[in-house]
Amino acid sequence: MRDGAELGSAVHAYRHAVIEERLPSTGAVLPPDWALQHPEDWCEVLRRAVPAALAEAGVDPAQVIGIATDFTACTVLPTTAEGVPLALVPEWAGRPHAWPKLWKHHAAQDQADRINALAHARGEKWIGRYGGKISSEWQYAKALQVLEEDPAVYAASARWIEAADWIVWQLTGAESRNACTAGYKGIHQDGAYPSPDFLGGLHPDFADFAATRLEHPLSALGSRVGSLSERAARWTGLPEGIAVAAGNVDAHVAAPAAGAVENGRMLAIMGTSTCHVLNGATLAEIPGICGVVDGGIVKGAYGYEAGQSAVGDIFAWWLRQGVPDHYRAEAQAAGEDLHQLLSRKAAGQPVGAHGLVALDWMNGNRSTLVDHHLSGVIAGLTLDTRPEDVYRALLESTAYGTRMIVEAFEAGGIPVEEFIVTGGLKKNALLMQIYADVLRRPVSVGTSEQGPALGSAIHAAVAAGAHPDIRSAAAVMGSVQRHAYLPDPVRADAYDALFNEYRALHDHFGTGTDLLLHRLRHLRNTARTAAGS
Amino acid sequence: MRDGAELGSAVHAYRHAVIEERLPSTGAVLPPDWALQHPEDWCEVLRRAVPAALAEAGVDPAQVIGIATDFTACTVLPTTAEGVPLALVPEWAGRPHAWPKLWKHHAAQDQADRINALAHARGEKWIGRYGGKISSEWQYAKALQVLEEDPAVYAASARWIEAADWIVWQLTGAESRNACTAGYKGIHQDGAYPSPDFLGGLHPDFADFAATRLEHPLSALGSRVGSLSERAARWTGLPEGIAVAAGNVDAHVAAPAAGAVENGRMLAIMGTSTCHVLNGATLAEIPGICGVVDGGIVKGAYGYEAGQSAVGDIFAWWLRQGVPDHYRAEAQAAGEDLHQLLSRKAAGQPVGAHGLVALDWMNGNRSTLVDHHLSGVIAGLTLDTRPEDVYRALLESTAYGTRMIVEAFEAGGIPVEEFIVTGGLKKNALLMQIYADVLRRPVSVGTSEQGPALGSAIHAAVAAGAHPDIRSAAAVMGSVQRHAYLPDPVRADAYDALFNEYRALHDHFGTGTDLLLHRLRHLRNTARTAAGS
Repeated sequence: MRDGAELGSAVHAYRHAVIEERLPSTGAVLPPDWALQHPEDWCEVLRRAVPAALAEAGVDPAQVIGIATDFTACTVLPTTAEGVPLALVPEWAGRPHAWPKLWKHHAAQDQADRINALAHARGEKWIGRYGGKISSEWQYAKALQVLEEDPAVYAASARWIEAADWIVWQLTGAESRNACTAGYKGIHQDGAYPSPDFLGGLHPDFADFAATRLEHPLSALGSRVGSLSERAARWTGLPEGIAVAAGNVDAHVAAPAAGAVENGRMLAIMGTSTCHVLNGATLAEIPGICGVVDGGIVKGAYGYEAGQSAVGDIFAWWLRQGVPDHYRAEAQAAGEDLHQLLSRKAAGQPVGAHGLVALDWMNGNRSTLVDHHLSGVIAGLTLDTRPEDVYRALLESTAYGTRMIVEAFEAGGIPVEEFIVTGGLKKNALLMQIYADVLRRPVSVGTSEQGPALGSAIHAAVAAGAHPDIRSAAAVMGSVQRHAYLPDPVRADAYDALFNEYRALHDHFGTGTDLLLHRLRHLRNTARTAAGS
Repeated sequence: MRDGAELGSAVHAYRHAVIEERLPSTGAVLPPDWALQHPEDWCEVLRRAVPAALAEAGVDPAQVIGIATDFTACTVLPTTAEGVPLALVPEWAGRPHAWPKLWKHHAAQDQADRINALAHARGEKWIGRYGGKISSEWQYAKALQVLEEDPAVYAASARWIEAADWIVWQLTGAESRNACTAGYKGIHQDGAYPSPDFLGGLHPDFADFAATRLEHPLSALGSRVGSLSERAARWTGLPEGIAVAAGNVDAHVAAPAAGAVENGRMLAIMGTSTCHVLNGATLAEIPGICGVVDGGIVKGAYGYEAGQSAVGDIFAWWLRQGVPDHYRAEAQAAGEDLHQLLSRKAAGQPVGAHGLVALDWMNGNRSTLVDHHLSGVIAGLTLDTRPEDVYRALLESTAYGTRMIVEAFEAGGIPVEEFIVTGGLKKNALLMQIYADVLRRPVSVGTSEQGPALGSAIHAAVAAGAHPDIRSAAAVMGSVQRHAYLPDPVRADAYDALFNEYRALHDHFGTGTDLLLHRLRHLRNTARTAAGS
C-alpha cells in the first residue's frame, strides 16, 4: 500500500537451512567453519511465500505495481554466464566450492588476512573505508578460497555474484548489480573495483577476477532494474512486466522501514546476528567497521555498516546446552517458551548480581575486530551460577559488543544519537532495556513485524514510481515507536563498571598478536582434521 | 577385619546438607560465600550409619575393638567449655556466626588476606610451610571473621574446635586435638601456635585466641585418645570402653587405605573437591600448597597437602545448567545417568577437538593460588560447542589444575612418582584417562569404595593395638589397583599444548594485582548486598 500498511505476510523456511555438516549432493562432510546454502531454497520462496502473502493479503495481484527483494550478504555464488549456479550444474554439483557460500562461511580467514596485509602494504586507498580490514565473509576472500582450493570450479565460474543480485536476475531474466553490495562487499569505491595489480598480487590467476566475474553497471538502490519476466510471473502469481527494484541487503533495506534514514539514527537489525546501519553527513574512516559506501543506504548520505556475527544465535546456543527439567516444566506451566522463561528469571536480578561477563564472539567478531577466528569466553562462573545468570550475561555481552561499535563511530566523528531496533529480538523487553542502559541512549523500536520486507516494499514503491525517492517514501510508509526504552541512570552506572571489564577481556583476548583464542582454534581444527582424515 | 576386608557400610545423608541460603534456626538469609553445617546432622551419623553398617556387616558388635572417624577440614565451630556447639545453645542459635563453618565457607577472604600480609611483614617462620598463604578456609580467618563481625559470639566461645576433634569428643566425652588438623589448619608448627604478638596484630582481642580457644595437648594420628563413652555406645551400638582413635581428616586418613604412605605417591581424594596428600622425606616450602606437617599423614614423614576447591562440584554444576531434552531421553534409553551419557559422548572426540580450555575455579582456587575470590572461565566457545564439549573441557580443567600442583611439588624438590586416586570420581574412566594423559603419569586407583572409612578402620586398628603402626597396618589392610591407567604419548603431547593455554589463562586471570575476577566478585557482592538491604 502507498501508506505502508502491511496487508499480508508469509514465511517459507529453507528446506536445507544452513548447510554446515554435509554437502546435499554427495553427503560429503564439510570442513570446519563452512556454511553453504541451496539456490533452489531461494527460488522456492518466490514460488511459495509470494503467492501465500498475496493470498493472505487478499489483494488482487493486478494491483501490485512492483517487487523488491532483500537478501543476506555477503552470500555469494559462482554461476555460468547465463546465471546458472554451478551448484546446479551436474558436472560441478559434487564440488563443495561450487555451492553458494552463506555470509557466515568463515573458512576464508587466511585469504582475508592476506588481502588485508597486501592492501596495507600497497597503501590501497579503499582499505580505510572498510575499517582497515576486509572480512573473510566478503566476495574477495571467498572467491580467492575457491581459486586456491578448487581452481577448476573457479575456472568454470563466469560470474561471481551476490545472491541479492542473483535473485533479481531470476525475477527479470537479466543480470544487474546493486550499488549496496558492490560497495560494502565488493570493494567498489570511487567508481572502481580493486585493480588487477592488487588482485594479481594475491594470486596470478586472480588478477582479472573483478574484470571478468564482477564488472557490470551498478544500479542505485530503489531504482528499477527491469520488469518481471514471464517465468517469474508464473512463479509468484504477480503480473508480468511490473517493476523490479535493484537488489538490496536485508539490513540496509530496513532503514527506511524503521525511520532510520536521517543521519545519526543507528538501525540495528537484531536477529541471529546484528547488522548496524547508520547514515552520516561526512566520509570518515572508522577502524573496524564493515564499510562506508556513498549512497549505500540512501542516496545523498554516506551509509555506514557495522555488525556482530552472532547475537540471537548466542542466546539460542545457550538454550541448546539445555535447561534443567524443572525449568522446562515451569515454562510449560506458564505457557512460555524457554527464552521467555530465562528472560523473566534473569530480569529480576540487579545489574552485576550474577558476577559474570562474557565475550560475544561465539561466531567470531565482525566489528570492530573483524576476526572470525575469535571465539566466546565466559568469566566469573561459580558453583551458584544459574542458567538464567549465563543467559543474562550473554544478552549483556551483545550489548557491550554494540557499545564498542557505537563508541568507534563516535570516536571517528560520526554521531550516534538514537538506537533503533528491528528484527526478531526487538520483542525481548529485557534485552531492549539492557541495550538502553548499556548504551545510555534511548532505544526506539521499528513497528513492522517484517522490517526488511516493509523496506523492500518501500524500494519497490519507489522503483515503480509511486513515490519520488526513498526518503519521501520512508516518511509515509515507515513506522517506529520512538524512545520505547529509556536508560535508567543507576543501572547505566552499574553497566559502566561491567562494560569496563568487558573491554578488558575484549582487549586481552581480541587484540595484539599470537592470540590464545586463535591458538585454541588452530588446535581444534588440527584435531578435527586429523580425526577426519 | 585385621586384613582390611570390608564387611559392611552404610551412608546417612545430612538432613540440612550444606547450609548456604538460610539459617535453619531463623530462616535468615545468609550473605554470599557462606557455607555452614548442622552439628545434629553429624551426631545422626553416629546414631544411624554406624548401627546400619554393623547390621549390614552381620558381625557381633562385641567383636569390634576400636573406632576411628574422619571429617572434612577445616570445618570448625565455636563451643562452650563443655563442647556444646553455640549453634545449639538457644541464646546463640539465631546468630549465623554461632554455627559451624564448613570448609567451603569462603566469606573470610579479607581476614585471610590480612593474616598473610602480617605474616609476611613480620617474617613469621611458619608462613612458608603453608605455601606462603594461609587459606580463608582455615581456623584463623574464620575465627577472626567471627570476632570482627559478631564479637558477642566470639566472646561466648570457650573453644574453637575442628569438627574432626568435636566428633571424637562426642565419642569419648573428653576433648582431644589431633596433630593433623592442628598442623594443617591450626598453624601448629615446631610445637607452637602463632604467637600472641602476631595474633594481637590482627585484632587486639585476638591476641589470646590460640591460648584460650585452641591450646590442648596434641595426639598423634592412630593413637588412642580415649574410650567409647556409655552415651556413644548407646548411640552406635558398639561396646562401651573400646578404643577411640585421634580425630583425622577425610583426605589424610585415606592414604594408608590406598597404598599411598610411601614417599612420592600422591593420593588424590577426588569427589566434590579434591585433596592431594603426599609424603616426602624432606621438609620443603612449596609455594601455594596447603601445608606441610611433620607426621601430618603418617609418623616419620613430612606430610604435604594441596587441594582443588571444586572438582566433581564443577561437573555437577554443568549438569545443573541442564541438558537437552533428547540427551535426557538418550540417557534414559541407555540406562545411564547424565554424567555417564556426557562422558560417553565426550570420550569419542580427539584431544583438543572441542576447541575449549576452562579454568576450574568455580569455587575459587585452593592450590597453588590460594584465592577463593577467583571464579571460573571458559574460553573458546562457538555456536557449535555442545554440552559434552563443555563437560569434557571441565574434566580437563581439573586435570590441568592438578598438573599445576604436581609441577609445584616437583619444582620444590618433592618428587611425585605416582598418582593414586580414591573417592567417588575414580569411577569415571574418561576422567582417569585424562588425568593419566595430562599428568604423563600412571594413575592407580584405590580399590575400596569407602577409602576414608577404610583408612579410619586402619587407624582404629592401630589405636586398638591390632597392628603396631599405620605403615604395617596399611600394608595388610590397604588395597590399590596399580597403574590402572597409563598415559598415551600422542594424547599427552596434545594435552601439553592445551595445558600451555590453561597456564596462560591461569597466569592472566590468577596472578598479579587488581584481578578482573576479583573486580567481578566485588561487583557481584555489591549488587547482591544492595538488593538484599
